[in-house]
Amino acid sequence: MTHSLWLKNCWYVIAWGHEVPPADSAELFHRTVLGEPILVYRTADGGLVALEDRCCHRHAPLSKGRREGDCVRCGYHGLKFDAQGACVEAPGIAVVPPRARVRTYPVALRNNWVFVWMGDPAQADTALLPDAFSNAHPDWLNRPGYLHYDTPYLLICDNLLDFSHLSYVHEKTLGGSTRIAQAVPDIEAVPGPTPAWPQIGIKVSRHVPDVPAPPFYQRFRSFDTHLDRWFVYEFLLPGTLLMHSGGRPVTDAKDDLSRAVQLHSCQTLTPETETTTHYFFQQSHRRGHGDATMTQSIYDSLQGAFNEDRDMITAQHRNLQFSPDAPMLPLAMDAALLQFRRLLAARVEIERNTQVA
Amino acid sequence: MTHSLWLKNCWYVIAWGHEVPPADSAELFHRTVLGEPILVYRTADGGLVALEDRCCHRHAPLSKGRREGDCVRCGYHGLKFDAQGACVEAPGIAVVPPRARVRTYPVALRNNWVFVWMGDPAQADTALLPDAFSNAHPDWLNRPGYLHYDTPYLLICDNLLDFSHLSYVHEKTLGGSTRIAQAVPDIEAVPGPTPAWPQIGIKVSRHVPDVPAPPFYQRFRSFDTHLDRWFVYEFLLPGTLLMHSGGRPVTDAKDDLSRAVQLHSCQTLTPETETTTHYFFQQSHRRGHGDATMTQSIYDSLQGAFNEDRDMITAQHRNLQFSPDAPMLPLAMDAALLQFRRLLAARVEIERNTQVA
Amino acid sequence: MTHSLWLKNCWYVIAWGHEVPPADSAELFHRTVLGEPILVYRTADGGLVALEDRCCHRHAPLSKGRREGDCVRCGYHGLKFDAQGACVEAPGIAVVPPRARVRTYPVALRNNWVFVWMGDPAQADTALLPDAFSNAHPDWLNRPGYLHYDTPYLLICDNLLDFSHLSYVHEKTLGGSTRIAQAVPDIEAVPGPTPAWPQIGIKVSRHVPDVPAPPFYQRFRSFDTHLDRWFVYEFLLPGTLLMHSGGRPVTDAKDDLSRAVQLHSCQTLTPETETTTHYFFQQSHRRGHGDATMTQSIYDSLQGAFNEDRDMITAQHRNLQFSPDAPMLPLAMDAALLQFRRLLAARVEIERNTQVA
Repeated sequence: MTHSLWLKNCWYVIAWGHEVPPADSAELFHRTVLGEPILVYRTADGGLVALEDRCCHRHAPLSKGRREGDCVRCGYHGLKFDAQGACVEAPGIAVVPPRARVRTYPVALRNNWVFVWMGDPAQADTALLPDAFSNAHPDWLNRPGYLHYDTPYLLICDNLLDFSHLSYVHEKTLGGSTRIAQAVPDIEAVPGPTPAWPQIGIKVSRHVPDVPAPPFYQRFRSFDTHLDRWFVYEFLLPGTLLMHSGGRPVTDAKDDLSRAVQLHSCQTLTPETETTTHYFFQQSHRRGHGDATMTQSIYDSLQGAFNEDRDMITAQHRNLQFSPDAPMLPLAMDAALLQFRRLLAARVEIERNTQVA
Repeated sequence: MTHSLWLKNCWYVIAWGHEVPPADSAELFHRTVLGEPILVYRTADGGLVALEDRCCHRHAPLSKGRREGDCVRCGYHGLKFDAQGACVEAPGIAVVPPRARVRTYPVALRNNWVFVWMGDPAQADTALLPDAFSNAHPDWLNRPGYLHYDTPYLLICDNLLDFSHLSYVHEKTLGGSTRIAQAVPDIEAVPGPTPAWPQIGIKVSRHVPDVPAPPFYQRFRSFDTHLDRWFVYEFLLPGTLLMHSGGRPVTDAKDDLSRAVQLHSCQTLTPETETTTHYFFQQSHRRGHGDATMTQSIYDSLQGAFNEDRDMITAQHRNLQFSPDAPMLPLAMDAALLQFRRLLAARVEIERNTQVA
Repeated sequence: MTHSLWLKNCWYVIAWGHEVPPADSAELFHRTVLGEPILVYRTADGGLVALEDRCCHRHAPLSKGRREGDCVRCGYHGLKFDAQGACVEAPGIAVVPPRARVRTYPVALRNNWVFVWMGDPAQADTALLPDAFSNAHPDWLNRPGYLHYDTPYLLICDNLLDFSHLSYVHEKTLGGSTRIAQAVPDIEAVPGPTPAWPQIGIKVSRHVPDVPAPPFYQRFRSFDTHLDRWFVYEFLLPGTLLMHSGGRPVTDAKDDLSRAVQLHSCQTLTPETETTTHYFFQQSHRRGHGDATMTQSIYDSLQGAFNEDRDMITAQHRNLQFSPDAPMLPLAMDAALLQFRRLLAARVEIERNTQVA
């Protein structure tokens, strides 16, 4: 994988909302996205600021400095920057040169995800923010999670675009039946919100009739019949999964969800560097179906299962490093991941061609 | 060192026989050889299988999957491979494409060493397997050992081809006298078993008369006289040492071995990657000369001494990395190692010239 | 940073004098300078020897061997080298070839610093040794320190050439006032001792009137008035700081130092590799002003502060690795560091042009 597969004109999640401390905190939150160190903080009026975490002077990280009101002062030689990235004070210098500034990133908070726009600020469009509603919704309960991967982000996208792996990687956790792998999903294009984005992702719908309940469902209730299960998700650029999933006893009527498990999951991948990735995720259950123990229990199942994924993808990545040029063999189950990779490559190509040199 | 000094058309030891679990075990043994991840397992009929440890689909290691009879199923998306490397099942796919297969390696078990042939399978010839008889022989006792090196394999070959280092690296363990370094060995070519291999290695014979017994000999018996010692070994492509060594009190007649120490050692080096190496070794004593305590004691001496080697070679490797192009100064003691390096380079050259593009 | 910014024809500190063990010690001191491993030892007559720590034979480090009188014997194959770097014995070889030798480095001990000359030995000139007098002087007391940096040495030179960082990095230790950053220092060229070296460094003089005593001064006495502080130092090629600093109560007469703090500090940077650096330092107080507790307390303050520097510079280095080509913004406070970098670059250029090919 090279930079060529990083889309820049899009929103990436840099943090959960609660990870960014309040305006009166001395702590400065920072994280690296697409190889760029970024500082995120809140202003007194409740706004969010994302600045390049690198002083324009000698490139020290501003996050090692300190807050002064809505400004940040570099901890190395004392340059002070306002929330627009302008240097407003440099010790011993009467007139600060106007080119003394750090880059700002368009930033947005929605559904408890903090997004940064990594490309041309003029193109930043909040219509492109994904609807990760269950992150923060009165009807849904969850505990947010974060994992760090030492693999390129596309390998994890691949994983999320082919749920046949549930039957094998997660046999003893989320899966429970080889029938998941055998069920052929419907795959559709997801149109974008504006003419500039005719397609923004892939929709994958997989129905798996008459299978045993997966191990982690047993925490909801003891199922004495098989279930009809479903997984319906959108996987959106640059790497966000929004999924409804669940299962209903085969003995119940189609429209009777009274004994069904109903879940909604939001997950998103943000490249940290060429070979490392941030992974933000949650899986929600409906308020009223299970209590706080349930919330924790789903979180624990997810953590366990996502560690299984990480083990597998890390091992896969190691093999890819041994033989980076060995071809893979596309199979039917790769339809969604191949479509997504093509979509991503096409958008990267558009981005390049419209770039002002 | 670069790939150019890896011979491919030859047998490399990938494991001790007992490292590969029985057919009914759930464990899947795998190891990397020449930068290629390889899976080794036993079939129900007692045969051995060596498969590329990389699924042809998305390159996950098969060793993270599971046994199903004589087949292996990938733990990522469930492709199932038979012992010939053919994919015999892919979930959700009615007709598996014939090109869905993983590479197999010719494999051989001899004298408790498991060998894989890394080059053209058509050229695999069991006549080239070394006669490491004492690994598994009723008259000889040993405890097998394994070390991992973070250095290129050729530096360790060099070490084994010049026993003058015993006087210094192993002064307090295997050595015991500077006379070993002073004794000039005889060096001869070892002819190969077939016309394609006029030479397969180097034979080094070193006789060291009238020296004190080395520290580790004291475990056999308390010697009150000097010994005549000998080290006679073949060092064979790609990196196998087969050695008779021993010592006899100078006061005993030449043909009286009743109080002699007689040892046979088999050691072999397998490149894991450009800069890391597998080292399999054992040193045997004759059954009847010493008991199980002796076997363990020889093993402990060898482990100790081979750690001394590893310390030295690792430090040497660090120096080589600082100045990779600085020339070495060949001296008389390098005769065997230089001959071996020339032999290896010549075989690599032959291999290149006969390669079908 | 690349090799191009390493000056070779100059003295680098390789050790504190007390780090090199006495002639009768079995220990062999070694350290890497400019990517070259070097062995330093003392001869029976009290002299110092600096040899390439790499046997000419197979490049093993001599420091893993052993002393034999004023000679060193390699621990791999037993070559023995005298203090002039000549191989005087090679086991099993009657006549040692004259080209069997290792490089020697001109070495000098002055003021408890051991220097090696890394370039052309014919140009080694002790007139170029810095006058780090307080390292070892009856009127001054100190405890010597050493830190290892995982950053290029020039970033640490930069740090020492701009004391405005004291106000921010060391706000709670050595600094204590933003007035240090605001005070504009005088900057002068330091002429060299010979015509070949018209300039050998930069002199920086900074006077900071009427400021609170810095936290670490409180260990000398409790100051109830502001101080006039001064920092007057030379920063000499390749990376040595020699500094007088201190502070006097503003209420005292200019020539009354009875209640003043007077310090002298010697610090020097030696590149270990492209990206790692040795840092030797001490800060002395006058004998009679404070006791052994004071000496330790100054050492502790310095260690604490220099860890603050190292944290900052390491973070800066990480940012530089993300974007090695992003330009820095020169500001007024960079005058000294820019002059030093120009001086260094000019000397490197001279060195290149006079090099015999």
